[in-house]
Amino acid sequence: MTRTARVHRVPMPDPGDCGALAALIDAGTIDPARIVAVMGKTPGNGLTNDHTREFATVTVAGELARRLGVAPAEVRARVLFVLSGGTEGMNAPHLLVFCAGPSAAAEGDERALALATAASVPLAPEAIGRAAQIAATADAVRAAMAEAGITDPADVAFVQVKCPIPMPGDFHDPARAAGLSAASIGTIKGRSRAASALGVAVALGDVGVEDATEAAIAARPDLFTGRACVTAGIDDDRASVLVLGNARGWSGPQSVGSTTMRDPLDAPAVAALLRRLGMTLAGGQAEPAGPLRLAGLIVKGEPPATDRLRGAQHVMLDDSDIHPVRHYRAFMSGVLGAVTGDTHVYLSGGAEHQGPPGGAVVAAIVERQ
Amino acid sequence: MTRTARVHRVPMPDPGDCGALAALIDAGTIDPARIVAVMGKTPGNGLTNDHTREFATVTVAGELARRLGVAPAEVRARVLFVLSGGTEGMNAPHLLVFCAGPSAAAEGDERALALATAASVPLAPEAIGRAAQIAATADAVRAAMAEAGITDPADVAFVQVKCPIPMPGDFHDPARAAGLSAASIGTIKGRSRAASALGVAVALGDVGVEDATEAAIAARPDLFTGRACVTAGIDDDRASVLVLGNARGWSGPQSVGSTTMRDPLDAPAVAALLRRLGMTLAGGQAEPAGPLRLAGLIVKGEPPATDRLRGAQHVMLDDSDIHPVRHYRAFMSGVLGAVTGDTHVYLSGGAEHQGPPGGAVVAAIVERQ
Amino acid sequence: MTRTARVHRVPMPDPGDCGALAALIDAGTIDPARIVAVMGKTPGNGLTNDHTREFATVTVAGELARRLGVAPAEVRARVLFVLSGGTEGMNAPHLLVFCAGPSAAAEGDERALALATAASVPLAPEAIGRAAQIAATADAVRAAMAEAGITDPADVAFVQVKCPIPMPGDFHDPARAAGLSAASIGTIKGRSRAASALGVAVALGDVGVEDATEAAIAARPDLFTGRACVTAGIDDDRASVLVLGNARGWSGPQSVGSTTMRDPLDAPAVAALLRRLGMTLAGGQAEPAGPLRLAGLIVKGEPPATDRLRGAQHVMLDDSDIHPVRHYRAFMSGVLGAVTGDTHVYLSGGAEHQGPPGGAVVAAIVERQ
Amino acid sequence: MTRTARVHRVPMPDPGDCGALAALIDAGTIDPARIVAVMGKTPGNGLTNDHTREFATVTVAGELARRLGVAPAEVRARVLFVLSGGTEGMNAPHLLVFCAGPSAAAEGDERALALATAASVPLAPEAIGRAAQIAATADAVRAAMAEAGITDPADVAFVQVKCPIPMPGDFHDPARAAGLSAASIGTIKGRSRAASALGVAVALGDVGVEDATEAAIAARPDLFTGRACVTAGIDDDRASVLVLGNARGWSGPQSVGSTTMRDPLDAPAVAALLRRLGMTLAGGQAEPAGPLRLAGLIVKGEPPATDRLRGAQHVMLDDSDIHPVRHYRAFMSGVLGAVTGDTHVYLSGGAEHQGPPGGAVVAAIVERQ
Repeated sequence: MTRTARVHRVPMPDPGDCGALAALIDAGTIDPARIVAVMGKTPGNGLTNDHTREFATVTVAGELARRLGVAPAEVRARVLFVLSGGTEGMNAPHLLVFCAGPSAAAEGDERALALATAASVPLAPEAIGRAAQIAATADAVRAAMAEAGITDPADVAFVQVKCPIPMPGDFHDPARAAGLSAASIGTIKGRSRAASALGVAVALGDVGVEDATEAAIAARPDLFTGRACVTAGIDDDRASVLVLGNARGWSGPQSVGSTTMRDPLDAPAVAALLRRLGMTLAGGQAEPAGPLRLAGLIVKGEPPATDRLRGAQHVMLDDSDIHPVRHYRAFMSGVLGAVTGDTHVYLSGGAEHQGPPGGAVVAAIVERQ
Repeated sequence: MTRTARVHRVPMPDPGDCGALAALIDAGTIDPARIVAVMGKTPGNGLTNDHTREFATVTVAGELARRLGVAPAEVRARVLFVLSGGTEGMNAPHLLVFCAGPSAAAEGDERALALATAASVPLAPEAIGRAAQIAATADAVRAAMAEAGITDPADVAFVQVKCPIPMPGDFHDPARAAGLSAASIGTIKGRSRAASALGVAVALGDVGVEDATEAAIAARPDLFTGRACVTAGIDDDRASVLVLGNARGWSGPQSVGSTTMRDPLDAPAVAALLRRLGMTLAGGQAEPAGPLRLAGLIVKGEPPATDRLRGAQHVMLDDSDIHPVRHYRAFMSGVLGAVTGDTHVYLSGGAEHQGPPGGAVVAAIVERQ
Repeated sequence: MTRTARVHRVPMPDPGDCGALAALIDAGTIDPARIVAVMGKTPGNGLTNDHTREFATVTVAGELARRLGVAPAEVRARVLFVLSGGTEGMNAPHLLVFCAGPSAAAEGDERALALATAASVPLAPEAIGRAAQIAATADAVRAAMAEAGITDPADVAFVQVKCPIPMPGDFHDPARAAGLSAASIGTIKGRSRAASALGVAVALGDVGVEDATEAAIAARPDLFTGRACVTAGIDDDRASVLVLGNARGWSGPQSVGSTTMRDPLDAPAVAALLRRLGMTLAGGQAEPAGPLRLAGLIVKGEPPATDRLRGAQHVMLDDSDIHPVRHYRAFMSGVLGAVTGDTHVYLSGGAEHQGPPGGAVVAAIVERQ
Repeated sequence: MTRTARVHRVPMPDPGDCGALAALIDAGTIDPARIVAVMGKTPGNGLTNDHTREFATVTVAGELARRLGVAPAEVRARVLFVLSGGTEGMNAPHLLVFCAGPSAAAEGDERALALATAASVPLAPEAIGRAAQIAATADAVRAAMAEAGITDPADVAFVQVKCPIPMPGDFHDPARAAGLSAASIGTIKGRSRAASALGVAVALGDVGVEDATEAAIAARPDLFTGRACVTAGIDDDRASVLVLGNARGWSGPQSVGSTTMRDPLDAPAVAALLRRLGMTLAGGQAEPAGPLRLAGLIVKGEPPATDRLRGAQHVMLDDSDIHPVRHYRAFMSGVLGAVTGDTHVYLSGGAEHQGPPGGAVVAAIVERQ
């Protein structure tokens, strides 16, 4: 008896229509009861007034609620939803549906994709972006590792986090406002991501616990993990984590790996990752006819802090019509597509302590054809 | 006695400031009297209300006029200016300055970069986008080839064309309006590009003269050349061409090559071109320390006609905030950058009869370090 | 025994949150069973990739379904939803909730707001934008008038229409494609609006039935009604109408009136309408302390066809970053706000046969304080 | 013997083409030797990457240089150029050309438009946005008043200022960086505007010199003048001012007045200003056939600090596709157009100490037909 995990990549170009997911459920390919997390890229601008993230969440949670015979709120409590807007360039809007459950297969010699979720203790608004969040996130990572049966942090390939941010209303509560005095709603988002990223780094041993202090939050870019993607969410006061690794006791057809890019042009790092995972490349690009295909690609990076890349000047930081992160996502989807031959990528900005400064974290899930 | 040609890549992030060009002239690196053409990407939106193209042209022509002691209008008559807006993603705004002149070097065994410009006969507004433009452009290509000393069309790597479009006023002239009746200002731009592209195709033997009929203009995407980039301009009633090839009788340090991409993800085609030109790649990307470096990259392509790329859906065609061509340019600069390790590319849309449908034309100029 | 109608203006800045509507239902101000139509402006771009319209519809229909104990689909079948994106400038995203039902009040001397909805027969894709749609829409207007107890077309102040457009799939059905051959998906939207506008015009006597021919559709801008706003929708194959008038037999506190603007600067026409409806103006602007207040403002207009307004040049038609209709809506909300002192306006583009060419239709619902 | 001043409103839709200005010079309507200042709206986005401001300045300065037989740099030293991008909505791109010179007319009983420019002492980067700039600007205003023959500050209707900002390079000079340590390039722009606005306020007696302290800069919005518009420029290290008033000793056909709007909907304040200046309004809008016509309209305001206007919510502050100031300018051009019946307005954002918080400054120049 083993467990099996699988990531399904499902198209969803319209945030009000999850027909492709419904069809996979109808066909028995996806068992809604096994879904533990849903990530996805939606076709909005990915910025403040992007309502496609919530719309897609409402749509998918409603569909799963109907299938499972529970209320949408219960689905949202049970399944970790991490939806991100912005499919610039030729990026394909899609969901990554993470499923796990028991399997009749016997344990073999190979390790296979293992995954589990966990949530931290609730974080008061005044604890967000502080040392308490580092510890709470690290605990959640350890809990999810235990749930997935992963004992060695080296076997964790990647951790996705949804971290909390205070609700705007929290700033208006005098009792709480004191604790929030240093943080505007603008910087608290980055600080929350930073604290949770350090929490992952500590749990995985990428950063020493003695270095991951409150003073280091958003202030020591040299401290980072190359195995995390943290997204801020407003619908929970806990840090929720999804841990992906390769472990014994799991018998599915997929495996996962990760790497870092040193800058936005570091396509060779991605090529090396795909090769390491067993894919074959021709002319620098993954071969469609190879023994493995890409089932999911998750990337965390952010626009450069300066107007230079390898000595060349770019002008995205001064563009008042298109936000720099939109230029960045479009460009990066091209860089990644050149290597993968594919346009599906969960690509997210805001990379505090996630990957080297100016670089990116890349996680790939591959599957036997 | 030979001739020598050289393409200089010059940064120009601000269309009102050509200081980098001025410095190269001051240093003696560029002789303004040898400049025959200036191409460039400027940081505007590359669409209707992009004034950076004309501003950059005014700036550069003014600088050259001061250097040469002539009026700016004379510079614009003598030098072919092809400025294109839109440096999306991390693309670097820059000029490509094409120089040619006599050299004291003796002719060697190698062929080197050869280039020359020519202009067609003037085209009346009613001849634009018609068979007459095909023939006129073909004649101009042949004239430039002769000027460059290239006799075999196989030695031509690439032809840049600036084709005319009727001025808005031409549509208000009753005598001329008759001849223009079928063409709106919107479609005439594409038809002019299409006619000139077929003209290049005929001159180079890529399309048979019997196929390149008026009926084929913008109607037979299967007829194309993989060696042309045509841009529409409003400041001339002639089709002006810049022919680039490799020829004996030229002794400069650069050479040129071209290829086509079958779709926007066809990075392997670009990798193969760089290898064929003698560059070395590592991990799929040009090595900075290799024997050759990229001196110029010119790409002609256009957003896809459908919402699919290799089976995946994209949403750029429905984006009412960012024009599809801006998504496309940002994405393509990532695809190309993954291979070249560089963010300088003259990338232009509107690819009628230029490259295979849905694909692109790529020309690269490389230079010994 | 009379009937009573009332239009409630309800804020809805977030398309996923109809809390203000829920509060009015909780307070007993709005009886969900009396809601016959919901119009509204949502905060998206109002163009192709605006998902806020559907999201807001899903949100409101879901809320009403919970309140009424029926399925959301039944709510959408019973209530006419006309949501429009684009709250540019300082325009306030909001709903207009149209309620009607029996009243215990006796009929007085005054006429009061009367309203009713009706739907046409289903229109096959090949009938859309054709003469059949003119007749079908006119029949629906007459049916709604009868339902509202309005016999004299002069008592109709305004008709809102949601007209059908073929689904993209209809174009791929060979049997149907023949009938659609002349119409692209782009022009069919305008032709459908045009046909339904002519239908309203015929029913109200604003255009003679002999003039409202198939040939006139989208081709005779001189034929128009000043009392219609037609919006295209994809979720029904019928033309649905909401007729607003002032009639005996109705006893509510509101009345309705309409006018046309001759051009986007025609603020005096709006001022005259408000005065005619009984509002007082000071310094050209509606007085907040006057006896009547504005309960709803609905405007149909469109960006100018040329680059001139009263002799002055504007550049909105050439803006490749911001769509002309977004410039127009922002500008118009300023012109209207100068007169009303208010920023709530349902403002919609695409004005074929609705108001004079280059002008607009304006309907105002006013209410005793 | 008197002097005469006149403001010419000149269309300029293309920043590379000042043909309308050239035609007025050719016709003798404008004497280039009398031009003391050129203000204007150009059709860019008015934000960071708007190159149309500099392009229009280059174009106009080049034309005047040719006319006057001097170098463009000398024109730019002699004439105050204040070009501002952003003609949203239906706003007309145009220049306001301010001319002054001797007149043969005798002094009459009426006061007429008087104008003059002056420049402050140079301000070191570390003095920008500090008390020294308040004093320097006040001195410049007094100098321009003296030059214009205006002794009573009550006769000054309006002061336009172009204030300096440190060049980016100044921040890299260690000797200077100390003095700049508190100011990022982002906030220094606002602080410079604020300091110069307080300088105008002091010179005109609108704010007491004891209140206009360094601590008040950008911190006391209750301190303001209703007669200033300050724009930041990078091409000078002095604060340059243009003072407009009505004075004896001037005999031209124009006069000037100003007022403040309390919020963006305060159209009645504008209507009252036009009436006070002698214009007639019908239906709340300036009558084209009245005895006076509007020759220039200059407005300084800024997007609201909150998401409410007169209790209604707007969403411009959360729009990640269109900058709030672009929404604001489009909306305001509608509000102003409703009163003036016209779409020419020099409308600029960044209103520190210029008009009441959330309101605007409006200056109008009117002329006898």
